[in-house]
Amino acid sequence: MRSRYLQIENDLKLVEEHIQKAVKSRTHFLKDTTDRILKSGGKRLRPSLTLICAGFGEYDKVKAVPAASAIEILHTATLVHDDIIDSSKTRRGIPTVASEHGIELAVYTGDFLFTKAVMELSESIPHERLRMVASAVKSICEGEVDQFFSRFDTNISVSSYLKRVLRKTSLLFAAACMCGAYSCGCSEELSRKLGRYGMNFGAAFQIKDDLNDFILCEKASGKTVMNDINKGDITLPAIYAMRHNKRIKTLYEQLKGDLTEHESQQIAIEIKNCVCKTKGIEQASLLLRKYTQKCKDIAEKLPEHGPKEILRELPDRIFT
Amino acid sequence: MRSRYLQIENDLKLVEEHIQKAVKSRTHFLKDTTDRILKSGGKRLRPSLTLICAGFGEYDKVKAVPAASAIEILHTATLVHDDIIDSSKTRRGIPTVASEHGIELAVYTGDFLFTKAVMELSESIPHERLRMVASAVKSICEGEVDQFFSRFDTNISVSSYLKRVLRKTSLLFAAACMCGAYSCGCSEELSRKLGRYGMNFGAAFQIKDDLNDFILCEKASGKTVMNDINKGDITLPAIYAMRHNKRIKTLYEQLKGDLTEHESQQIAIEIKNCVCKTKGIEQASLLLRKYTQKCKDIAEKLPEHGPKEILRELPDRIFT
Repeated sequence: MRSRYLQIENDLKLVEEHIQKAVKSRTHFLKDTTDRILKSGGKRLRPSLTLICAGFGEYDKVKAVPAASAIEILHTATLVHDDIIDSSKTRRGIPTVASEHGIELAVYTGDFLFTKAVMELSESIPHERLRMVASAVKSICEGEVDQFFSRFDTNISVSSYLKRVLRKTSLLFAAACMCGAYSCGCSEELSRKLGRYGMNFGAAFQIKDDLNDFILCEKASGKTVMNDINKGDITLPAIYAMRHNKRIKTLYEQLKGDLTEHESQQIAIEIKNCVCKTKGIEQASLLLRKYTQKCKDIAEKLPEHGPKEILRELPDRIFT
Repeated sequence: MRSRYLQIENDLKLVEEHIQKAVKSRTHFLKDTTDRILKSGGKRLRPSLTLICAGFGEYDKVKAVPAASAIEILHTATLVHDDIIDSSKTRRGIPTVASEHGIELAVYTGDFLFTKAVMELSESIPHERLRMVASAVKSICEGEVDQFFSRFDTNISVSSYLKRVLRKTSLLFAAACMCGAYSCGCSEELSRKLGRYGMNFGAAFQIKDDLNDFILCEKASGKTVMNDINKGDITLPAIYAMRHNKRIKTLYEQLKGDLTEHESQQIAIEIKNCVCKTKGIEQASLLLRKYTQKCKDIAEKLPEHGPKEILRELPDRIFT
């Protein structure tokens, strides 16, 4: 067990090296910028899942490492584009490409990373699987567009939220797991099981992230606090809380108006306080537990020859 | 010969149908928007080249049509993102996604189209070729970034301009030709020759486009007149003209300043007039002829069994 963890840790270092090589560019700006984003940290959860899931096949780091790198590059590409949309100032403690260099360069940096990911993937997973990954990215785009259109929609249901989360976040986690499985020759059935694990893991991840927006202070989450609230993304804790406290709805409606930064910040703080005082946090935490349990149940049924213990432990390590 | 043209024309209709099916999405916005952009016209030069080049192999429309569709979808993805960067108001006579729906949705629409293109390509060309196409897109991004950084660089040389053009425009034409060749099983050597044809064709295309910016009036080109001048893209006619008329340099320097729209429009008009009065247009036209001649020379040496006559005629049809 300990040796399994050590191997993943070691191979994650190889992933870092592989990524550094993969994102080389003659264009200094692209090289420097992508280097900096990729070195700025992040938990590397997705590539870790790729490596872990590869362990259910004939584990070969020569195949698993490029697949894991591709997933992390792909994830980074989506972050760079998301930061344009969210007008986020910082990410992982450093200025976003969009805020530091403008939208133009952020669009191309994301595109550049995206094509690099395709190049890596085309060499690390079987041809017929590539469509699956591309299809996942397509759904991510669809999820983001849906989210954009449901901003400030105070009638959003838990199930619409979950549908959005599945597309926006879970699919990439599922792709991370499946690419690992595919890279080392797992059967179709096993790959799908691992993909299901990734879907549930991704849902738990997003709910946890949305919970943190309400619970943590600016420093701890590394994101501008209440950014989501201000831009009208109504997430799970707020959806639950609105059932008990109608004032939250009214506050979101007010946020749509033409406000100064100070005013909207004040409203966002009040929304935050309302959600925390009502049962929003509790109920969202319950659903988070449901998804972590689902992950563990799936892990339970995985074949003994793979690192199933790690997948069984991981949800509790990450989400509690 | 006439029957060859007819076949391409017919199969181009299949490309349109294929594209319509390919860009389907559950997200209405993406479906409607991509439908509208793709139906808004354009000369379909790139997919035509794909179909023509496929004719040098064992032509099979079942293979060539998806490849040609992928190239057009890919091209459209780059246009949607370019329109964000250029802040273009219209494209092909209709409002751009960025100007009509905002940057957020334009970023995702481009990403969506890009992944759709990858999905199509992964099924229509051999696996090992996909890297070539991804690499072409990567270079397009690099070319755009380089162009961004050389805005208002009045010391730009003809050779830097050409290097930029090769990456920004020619590579996608080359990819169009090579994907056609690959889709219908041309040899590596023949595919590369066709790729070289595409490179030169693309260079001619870009030079022609840059010439049109100076020669045509707004209506004819469909682009906002002098958009390139205003945003500091110094193109071939201006580069040549600057050699003879130092005033142009000074004017570009002035454009960098903090000007009203009217002021910068006035300077742009003066630049345009200077370039037209000096030898800029003539010399750029000469280089255009050089590239069209290169295309014809390459076509001349292509095997007789393919539609070489079409490739020999095409440059004169398009560029003169």
